[in-house]
Amino acid sequence: MKKIAIAIHGGAGTIAPHLLTTELEKAYLKGLEDALKQGYETLKNNGSATNAVAIAVMCLEDNPLFNAGKGAVFNHIGGHELDAAIMQGIDLKAGAACGVTGIKNPVLLAKAIMEKSEHVMMAGNGAFEFARQNGIVIEDEAYFYTEHRYKQWQDLKDSENFQLDHSEVKSEKKFGTVGAVALDEQGNMAAATSTGGMTNKKFGRIGDSPVIGAGTYANNATCAISCTGHGELFLRSVVAYDISCLMEYKNFTLKQACDLVVYDKLVKIGGEGGLVALDAKGDIEMPFNSEGMYRAKININGDIEVKIYK
Amino acid sequence: MKKIAIAIHGGAGTIAPHLLTTELEKAYLKGLEDALKQGYETLKNNGSATNAVAIAVMCLEDNPLFNAGKGAVFNHIGGHELDAAIMQGIDLKAGAACGVTGIKNPVLLAKAIMEKSEHVMMAGNGAFEFARQNGIVIEDEAYFYTEHRYKQWQDLKDSENFQLDHSEVKSEKKFGTVGAVALDEQGNMAAATSTGGMTNKKFGRIGDSPVIGAGTYANNATCAISCTGHGELFLRSVVAYDISCLMEYKNFTLKQACDLVVYDKLVKIGGEGGLVALDAKGDIEMPFNSEGMYRAKININGDIEVKIYK
Repeated sequence: MKKIAIAIHGGAGTIAPHLLTTELEKAYLKGLEDALKQGYETLKNNGSATNAVAIAVMCLEDNPLFNAGKGAVFNHIGGHELDAAIMQGIDLKAGAACGVTGIKNPVLLAKAIMEKSEHVMMAGNGAFEFARQNGIVIEDEAYFYTEHRYKQWQDLKDSENFQLDHSEVKSEKKFGTVGAVALDEQGNMAAATSTGGMTNKKFGRIGDSPVIGAGTYANNATCAISCTGHGELFLRSVVAYDISCLMEYKNFTLKQACDLVVYDKLVKIGGEGGLVALDAKGDIEMPFNSEGMYRAKININGDIEVKIYK
Repeated sequence: MKKIAIAIHGGAGTIAPHLLTTELEKAYLKGLEDALKQGYETLKNNGSATNAVAIAVMCLEDNPLFNAGKGAVFNHIGGHELDAAIMQGIDLKAGAACGVTGIKNPVLLAKAIMEKSEHVMMAGNGAFEFARQNGIVIEDEAYFYTEHRYKQWQDLKDSENFQLDHSEVKSEKKFGTVGAVALDEQGNMAAATSTGGMTNKKFGRIGDSPVIGAGTYANNATCAISCTGHGELFLRSVVAYDISCLMEYKNFTLKQACDLVVYDKLVKIGGEGGLVALDAKGDIEMPFNSEGMYRAKININGDIEVKIYK
């Protein structure tokens, strides 16, 4: 049997155990497990890595617990601006949507951009128009409303502050992003990432998630990566492609490359967060330098792991 | 005396000699030389590389011959959507604006985002709002109108075609972008890029120019890069950071890294275009795999070169 493997994340940050009730923790773990298994089913049925990561991310987008799709945070003017990207390692094709509104599953828009357009990256109203023309499901504002996100926004909206995710305590930092990486039976890899960004974000801010090379990257020659963290620092560090280059140009293993970037380079510049990564052998790494990261994987032996803390 | 150096570009592509009248060619060369000298003056007066690239790019943005700022091409709905980025090698700080309208000098908006915001990348109306709040010069539509760009758009606007730049002949490809890299007396490097994108572009398309790592990158440990070319392929190849990684991780010289990326890796995937690059020694490379590239440089010996063809 050929090797298949998948890893997903639902964001990283200071996930204080005392704020996460047993019930809520269970819901997060179940949400991760459901998305993981749907992606894995795709791979088991000889589906492509591209489809597997899209399906896993779609599940996380549909789950209101995670900051992507339904459950995305409110921006400064009370709307939702969503970012997503997907890349496949077989041919380095990629698609990304930035700052889109009303798209149920931004990862499917990113996939349509990759597969049906001559472009890689589309933004705002233009990206919405492309979505409309290509049958991407559109939802009204009510769909994106969730009470806990609304409350978070109310707490912040008259201030100049923004929040990286959905923590109830302002001093906490959470990087609300979801993502997946997968290896399929054909030996192809793919990565996808989706996010609602920061609560109360302004100025059409774009983080690393939809940026190929920063938050999302896949290359059959090296690895597939999806990041979650302090977007600005991940952008400036070109994190995902950096890991790929360390493997390609310095012959680092996936683990060596991930360790250097997440525990050394990012820490030095205060770049809190983490990522999920896998390589052509099916090895999986899920490093994070924050207190926790919602994450799950099924390795080449079929072993499943779903975790939040270290 | 300490080493200073600067290189700029005004786009690459198939610049057919028979379409470029002697008069027009002179105007392009003069435009390049003027921008180059303004950037160089900044460096000579002990200005920072960051200021030098901003000033050089500003000159090119103000020149209607080049596809950036005034002279930017029309998009599908008859407007102008401008992208720009800047990065400085001393601290890897960066700023980028995507799909902004009405900004006289997008490079100055990118610089303000880098210097005055907590973010790296801003898009659309949000970026405009930030510009307004930070005293960035705003112009009305009339400022951005140029007759030759309007004609190009008229030729294309009822079609589904888009054009990479301002050629009169549709079969020609030009990648209309401007950019600069500089090394200052303190040994700091910087890079900046600005573009109006493609004539008749749709869907809020974003190319490589404003993407840190793809079209623009600077790192004192390696190099400063500004790209011009087929944006989608430059994005997927993470071109600028790839050159930096080849230097950092494989000990390539700037020339070796540029040659591999521009003449080999990009050519293999049909990625037409070029870039300007410099390293900490002040060595300058200006490789391109297209027919021509508007380019100019002043090296550490003060020698000036302004060229279009090979």
